[in-house]
Amino acid sequence: MNILIKNITALLPDGEGIKAKICDICISGDRIVSVDSAPENFIAQKVINGSGKMAIPGLINCHTHAYMTVFRNVADDLSFQDWLMGNIMPLEDQLTSEDGYWGAMLGCLEMIKTGTTCFTDMHMFEGQSVRAAYESGMRAVISRGLSGGESDKAGAKRRIDEALREMDAAKSLDDNGRISFLLGPHAIYTCDNGYLSEIVALAKEKKLGLNVHLSESRFEVGSCMEQHGCSPVELLDKLGLFELPTLAAHCVHLSDDDISLLAKRGVSVATNPISNMKLGNGFAPIPKLQKAGVNICLGTDGAASNNALNMFREMGILSLIHKGALEEAQAVSAVDVLNFATVNGAKALGLETGVISPGKKADIAILDLDVPQFRPLNNPVSALCYSANGSEVETVIIDGNIVMENRRMATLDEQRIFFEVERIRNKFGK
Amino acid sequence: MNILIKNITALLPDGEGIKAKICDICISGDRIVSVDSAPENFIAQKVINGSGKMAIPGLINCHTHAYMTVFRNVADDLSFQDWLMGNIMPLEDQLTSEDGYWGAMLGCLEMIKTGTTCFTDMHMFEGQSVRAAYESGMRAVISRGLSGGESDKAGAKRRIDEALREMDAAKSLDDNGRISFLLGPHAIYTCDNGYLSEIVALAKEKKLGLNVHLSESRFEVGSCMEQHGCSPVELLDKLGLFELPTLAAHCVHLSDDDISLLAKRGVSVATNPISNMKLGNGFAPIPKLQKAGVNICLGTDGAASNNALNMFREMGILSLIHKGALEEAQAVSAVDVLNFATVNGAKALGLETGVISPGKKADIAILDLDVPQFRPLNNPVSALCYSANGSEVETVIIDGNIVMENRRMATLDEQRIFFEVERIRNKFGK
Repeated sequence: MNILIKNITALLPDGEGIKAKICDICISGDRIVSVDSAPENFIAQKVINGSGKMAIPGLINCHTHAYMTVFRNVADDLSFQDWLMGNIMPLEDQLTSEDGYWGAMLGCLEMIKTGTTCFTDMHMFEGQSVRAAYESGMRAVISRGLSGGESDKAGAKRRIDEALREMDAAKSLDDNGRISFLLGPHAIYTCDNGYLSEIVALAKEKKLGLNVHLSESRFEVGSCMEQHGCSPVELLDKLGLFELPTLAAHCVHLSDDDISLLAKRGVSVATNPISNMKLGNGFAPIPKLQKAGVNICLGTDGAASNNALNMFREMGILSLIHKGALEEAQAVSAVDVLNFATVNGAKALGLETGVISPGKKADIAILDLDVPQFRPLNNPVSALCYSANGSEVETVIIDGNIVMENRRMATLDEQRIFFEVERIRNKFGK
Repeated sequence: MNILIKNITALLPDGEGIKAKICDICISGDRIVSVDSAPENFIAQKVINGSGKMAIPGLINCHTHAYMTVFRNVADDLSFQDWLMGNIMPLEDQLTSEDGYWGAMLGCLEMIKTGTTCFTDMHMFEGQSVRAAYESGMRAVISRGLSGGESDKAGAKRRIDEALREMDAAKSLDDNGRISFLLGPHAIYTCDNGYLSEIVALAKEKKLGLNVHLSESRFEVGSCMEQHGCSPVELLDKLGLFELPTLAAHCVHLSDDDISLLAKRGVSVATNPISNMKLGNGFAPIPKLQKAGVNICLGTDGAASNNALNMFREMGILSLIHKGALEEAQAVSAVDVLNFATVNGAKALGLETGVISPGKKADIAILDLDVPQFRPLNNPVSALCYSANGSEVETVIIDGNIVMENRRMATLDEQRIFFEVERIRNKFGK
């Protein structure tokens, strides 16, 4: 389908920066074909009136666990140990694969409604994140979480089998390449070295990148130093993970040497500021990572440790906390944060998206400017970062398809999703 | 008018905590008369179907400068000095009193839309915040910002005259006591000691409380130590301010002695976490203030340093930053934060509101629960703090009057306000 978005204020790339310009955006099939005045010979099957609206690149949530959306607000204001061992893991044991599907559907619904067009997922239910991404229309980069080793050989093997099977199964989908995969070694504290090496070999064979949790807590770093005599970053480097394109989530507790190594190896860091605060893990050293030239992208983590999958909330908070912690108002600007949430995410995932530019995939969120929080519109980029709450998103286009128009979902049945997740909640008896 | 809200999930007080209960809320005139099943003899002129909705006490924004909403996003990612001297103050010089009115109107609109029913304002345009509060239907506690002293005797006197004149003028309003006043000595660095003493004497004479900025920046504290040999908190105590009910905004840089003194004197602290981060001032010591028993309430500050007047954004961030800074997931809970934004605000301002309870003023926000970020609804209080973004607010009742219903404003003309603030923006030539 050809789509014409008329007279819209669009955020366009401008060197390292971003400029706002009123223009027409022409989309043909899955691609943006022009960002200017519509060519005379462009025949649109669909015209969207962009007056009083703003088009931004669809946001890229670089780290989440969509199935966990069923655990929203189930365990808050608790220490990491209590949260994970006392609450989340026992609840996960009660989830069926179908429950995981509805959790992922709710996650996709919430992400689309708040302008996210692509997410990186680590899951535990074979095929269910793929199914939710496929049905919702989202772009997704999916990994089955892999854990185990000598202590759980059968489980370790089963998880790899599931990962390979879901990739194979996805080949038959008519998804136009919307759904892709990474291998997902969960973390150094859930995979032993032998298993990590096995995953590296498999990734090389299958030409896949990696998605891993890294240096999330002080405990993780301390244990690693004790057990392996080096930091988690150094350990993964020794095991050869960074020879592959790697997306490392969290990276809160890093030494200066760790930061240099991440930069040198071209590892992308998916920072999750809300989750890191919520679980008492602290603030990732974003200004230092920026200075070292690391590709930083942004994620929400799962709803159990956030408790929303709203990238606007995440952008706003990320821009603020380092200004606070360093007592430096210039730290982490609005432009930086918007880049983390768009172009940098696309770079980390090797996707042709994250920017409104001819030739790129048509992943676009359209926001209503006629809301008090955007008035007066002194600076659109600042407004997105410091004033927006995500509810301004009206229409979402992913891969050239309109998945939400004027806040009505074209792909998902909201009431069905609400019904199913409440049914799952009742099962927990909480 | 009698209003009946049927079958609503209401957040009710439960000792120090908060419980969610499905009930009927009956309102008669400006008061809540029952929170249970509606009495048989209660005749309602208006019935609101509360199924699938949540009623919360209207939020109380304890520190803002509503007129500054016209400066939203005008000067971001700048140091405090650049922000204030290089941008905000020169722009303020260009504002007319009528501009200040439209800024305040935009502020009221944004606050109502995000569930705030009462705000504490410090302004510079006589009568304009009163006018905006009166017309919007908001409850407001207003103070003309007072600055000056020996170096500006005429200005100092003029500002006091304006404060007294606007209070006198407000006596003739049929506002049912919605609008009240504090005297507003701006800060120790804008008022000299003589002027502060004069304000204390006037407050005693007029039986008014005080609204003051206090210990916002390291620079303020350092200069005070140098000039007066004591901290700003100690200075205000010496000058007798704390003999009056005092609402102190910011309180970021406090010694342990300062904290004890604030607790001993019963000073209420209005914390503004976003503003304090945005301008690089840091994090207020909220957990220490809690431990000392200080009455903590919450504010957004002006939109020029935030850049929104959305108390949901403020609540979420406040609950997170101390968990991050202290690396302690239990710090500042969702219940704490909701109390700061409601009952504690009412206590600071001496108002009979902040809680849904018979006999209290009917200031209530009704939220839509049928949104992804509230599903599944495992814990309503956590959901408000960690998942909401403010857009869930559908209907707002203030002083027994419906000021917004199903997101349609009953009191304000949104398009007119947007038009006027854009006109003002164009005047700046930015």
